Amino acid sequence: MRASFDLSLYLVLDPVQCGGHDAAVRVARAALEGGATIVQLRAPEWHKRAWFELARDLLPITRAHGVPFVVNDHVDVALAVGADGVHIGQRDLPADVARRLLGPDALIGLSVSNLDETADAAKRAGVVDYLGAGPVYATPTKTDASTPCGIDGLAEICAAAHVATVAIGGIQAHNAADVMRAKPAGLAVVSAICKAADPRTAASALAATIAQSRI
Amino acid sequence: MRASFDLSLYLVLDPVQCGGHDAAVRVARAALEGGATIVQLRAPEWHKRAWFELARDLLPITRAHGVPFVVNDHVDVALAVGADGVHIGQRDLPADVARRLLGPDALIGLSVSNLDETADAAKRAGVVDYLGAGPVYATPTKTDASTPCGIDGLAEICAAAHVATVAIGGIQAHNAADVMRAKPAGLAVVSAICKAADPRTAASALAATIAQSRI
Repeated sequence: MRASFDLSLYLVLDPVQCGGHDAAVRVARAALEGGATIVQLRAPEWHKRAWFELARDLLPITRAHGVPFVVNDHVDVALAVGADGVHIGQRDLPADVARRLLGPDALIGLSVSNLDETADAAKRAGVVDYLGAGPVYATPTKTDASTPCGIDGLAEICAAAHVATVAIGGIQAHNAADVMRAKPAGLAVVSAICKAADPRTAASALAATIAQSRI
Repeated sequence: MRASFDLSLYLVLDPVQCGGHDAAVRVARAALEGGATIVQLRAPEWHKRAWFELARDLLPITRAHGVPFVVNDHVDVALAVGADGVHIGQRDLPADVARRLLGPDALIGLSVSNLDETADAAKRAGVVDYLGAGPVYATPTKTDASTPCGIDGLAEICAAAHVATVAIGGIQAHNAADVMRAKPAGLAVVSAICKAADPRTAASALAATIAQSRI
């Protein structure tokens, strides 16, 4: 289990949305300058060599900002570069297997989309550090995503969860405050930063909305 | 590096071609009874949880037959189940990274499709145990495969390789003897066994052709 981490503004970095490897590095750096508190690499269309090379380039940047860097799905890529952890879905390696491979200090997040999966995750106390709950809204980013849970569904998951929960799925600047009403620990965004004309400003605005919603 | 292994009849087990998890287990068992000397799991359409569950079920079967079991691409799945090694492509994790993660005793194979990649693999002496050369023929199994190297190209690769080479790509009962003229250490087949009406008999016939071609 990771001693301390901040899910407030969780960047899911999709290098294809960013425009490739180099653009993804620039987006990550800008998002961190704008206030992103954790970065996940997720590149479902990419071969693993490209994941590895980008992960290797991202890690020193996240380290310089003191935020965790996690890899979606691929425990081997996380091990290869020495990432801080992984984020896994219900159809990836089981969480306990990921924990065994990554060790006790890794940060492990698990996607849940309903209360059954949330209850199941609670049985993995000591294995899973946080939950990613969603999709809150329908999103074109993940074509194989579950049915959207909406704000009410998200609130139920957050209330039932045994660990901190970050909301994900269709979250943009215009609905960020709404989503925060469900009391997640933070918001995960993909296109809201990866496709932003100015990722630093986009991150900064989202961070401000998140901070404001907690007052 | 693996102390000893036999590439003669190399089954690349595609569970989708077999008809699912249970059918793939049956095909693997039948192929081993028929004379398969090594088994690789490759399920490009599958999520990693399904890879993991099938790999976990295959390992005791290959162990019982005393043949190695390797996982295509996913070093994490190999680590998770304690497989004997991995087979990686040019766009997967680099071979030296896979070796570092899997340790000195793992069996690591690398796909090559031309002499440049074969020469590059030779620089990885002590890292790669064998090469998979091909595709020999065009094949619908791998839609992202390289240009077929043909029998002559295969012979060039086998002659240039620093380690044992298994031929792959479009190999079926009717062309197996032709491919063996290029002097590979063995033949890798997918549909010739996975889609066979009787995988045991198909494996047995291929094994006989391979043995005959060496006389």
